[in-house]
Amino acid sequence: MELLQNNKSFDGEQRIYAFESHVLKNSTKFGIYLPSQALQGQSCPALFYLAGLTCNEETFAIKAHAQRLAAQLGLILITPDTSPRGEGVAEGDHWDIGQGAGFYINATQAPWAEHFQMESFIVDELYQLVNQEFDIQQDSIGIFGHSMGGHGALTLAFKYPEKFKSVSAFAPICAPSQCPWGEKAFSNYLGDDREEWLQHDATALIQAKGALFSDILIDQGFSDQFYSQLNPALLQQACDAVGQKLSLREHQGYDHGYYFIQSFIDDHLQFHAVQLQA
Amino acid sequence: MELLQNNKSFDGEQRIYAFESHVLKNSTKFGIYLPSQALQGQSCPALFYLAGLTCNEETFAIKAHAQRLAAQLGLILITPDTSPRGEGVAEGDHWDIGQGAGFYINATQAPWAEHFQMESFIVDELYQLVNQEFDIQQDSIGIFGHSMGGHGALTLAFKYPEKFKSVSAFAPICAPSQCPWGEKAFSNYLGDDREEWLQHDATALIQAKGALFSDILIDQGFSDQFYSQLNPALLQQACDAVGQKLSLREHQGYDHGYYFIQSFIDDHLQFHAVQLQA
Repeated sequence: MELLQNNKSFDGEQRIYAFESHVLKNSTKFGIYLPSQALQGQSCPALFYLAGLTCNEETFAIKAHAQRLAAQLGLILITPDTSPRGEGVAEGDHWDIGQGAGFYINATQAPWAEHFQMESFIVDELYQLVNQEFDIQQDSIGIFGHSMGGHGALTLAFKYPEKFKSVSAFAPICAPSQCPWGEKAFSNYLGDDREEWLQHDATALIQAKGALFSDILIDQGFSDQFYSQLNPALLQQACDAVGQKLSLREHQGYDHGYYFIQSFIDDHLQFHAVQLQA
Repeated sequence: MELLQNNKSFDGEQRIYAFESHVLKNSTKFGIYLPSQALQGQSCPALFYLAGLTCNEETFAIKAHAQRLAAQLGLILITPDTSPRGEGVAEGDHWDIGQGAGFYINATQAPWAEHFQMESFIVDELYQLVNQEFDIQQDSIGIFGHSMGGHGALTLAFKYPEKFKSVSAFAPICAPSQCPWGEKAFSNYLGDDREEWLQHDATALIQAKGALFSDILIDQGFSDQFYSQLNPALLQQACDAVGQKLSLREHQGYDHGYYFIQSFIDDHLQFHAVQLQA
C-alpha cells in the first residue's frame, strides 16, 4: 500500500491509499478515515461506504461530512473507488457504465469481465487488506452507500451477512433489474439472463433470503431527480413480505446529492454504531 | 439574480446565484446558505466567508461542513467567488495571481484594474444586494475566511468595522506585504509603492487602526504547507501592541486544507453567533 494523502481531521486522519489489486488487475485507490481512537491503538468498528455513479474514493471524504461524528463514535470509514480505472480498463459510452460505474458486481461478459470484479474486490481483497493493515474490531463491520452504492451495500450485506453486521443506504437503487440504470449495467456486465440478474438485485435477494438484519435504515428524498430509477416501494414490499424490518424515511424537498446525504449522515453513523455494538 | 442551483440541506437551502456585477464588469456567482429560520421569514444574522486561492463560490459549501451548525444557529452564510472570471478578464501566469486570486482589494494597475475590484464588490455591491434580497438582521453581519480569504476578512473588517461586527479566520495571510504571495499580488494589482500596500495588510492595518473588535478568532495548523507565507506571529505582535484581543489557536498536525477547516468550523460559527448577538 502506498499512502498518497494524509490530512488530519477531527484529531483523526483522513487518508488515501493506492495499491495493486490482484482482483481488479490494476492499481486502485481507497480512502480511510481513522479516528484518534484507532491512531492510539484501540480496536475500532468500521464501515464500508460504497459511492454512486461517477464518484471515486474521495467523494465521501470531501462531501458527506461524516468525520465529525465518526471521530466522536470512534468509527473507521473505508471508501473504495466505484470501479477499476486506468489504461487498459474498458470505458463506457456514458457515465452510467464502465469506469465510475462498477455496480459492485463481478462482470462475466467481454469487455468488462477482465477488470470489473468489484464484488470480489470489496468483500475479499479490500476487506482482507483493511482487516490486516488496521485494527478493526472483530465482527464490527457495517456497510452503507449511496445510489449505485446503496444497491451495492444492500446486495453485499444480504450476500455476505457473515461479513457485514449492519446495513443502511441513501437513495439506493433498490431494484436494478427493473430500472434503466440497472438494466443497462446488468445486461452489459452479466449478459441477458434475467434470472442471473436477480442474484444482484436487493429487492429480489431479500425476497429470496428473508430477514437477516435487525433493521435497515434508508433515507430517500422526494425531490430526487432520479427517483424513478430507485423504487423504494418495491424494497419495502419485499421487506414486508419476509418480515425484514426496514426504516425507510422519505423527506420532502431533498434531492439525490451530497447536500441530502450530509443532512442525514449523522443518523446513519449512529444507526451503525448501535448495531455494531449490539 | 439568476438562481443556478438550489439544494435542500439541513432543512435549509444551499443556493448558487449568478448576477451581472457592475463593479466587476462581468457576470459573477455567489453561494448562500439559508437556514430554515430564514426560509420561514425570520430575520437572521449573516456571515460572509471569503475563500482562498483557486477556490470559488461553491468550495466552502461543499468542503467546510458548516451547514449543520448554521442550521441550528440560524445563520445565513454568503460565499462570493474569489475573483472576477470569464472572457475578457485578465489571466495570471500561475494560480496565485489573476482569476481565482483577487485578494479582496481594488486593483489600480493594468491589466487588472478593469475587472479586479473585489473590495468594492464585496463591501458595496454584494453587501447591498444580499441585504436587499434576503432578510438579514440589522447590524448582525460578520466576516471570516481562509488563507487569502483570511487576509480579506481581517482587512475588510478593519477597513469597514461599521459593516462587519465580528471577524475570524483560518490560516490567514496575516502580513501580505511581507510574503511572496502578497508581494506578487500587491505589486501586480497596486504597483510598487509599498506604503500603499500597508492599507491592505492586516498586520499594518491593526497597528494603524488600533483595537476595533472585542475578539478575533484565528485557527492555524502547525503542519500547514504554506506556514511561511502566513506570519501569525506578526499579527499577534500588532494586536498585542494596540491592545486588540486575538484568540490565536495553533494546532499540531493540521495542514492548510478543508480537512483542517471542517475540524474547527463549528467553533467559528459559535464565535460569530455570540459576537453578533452581543
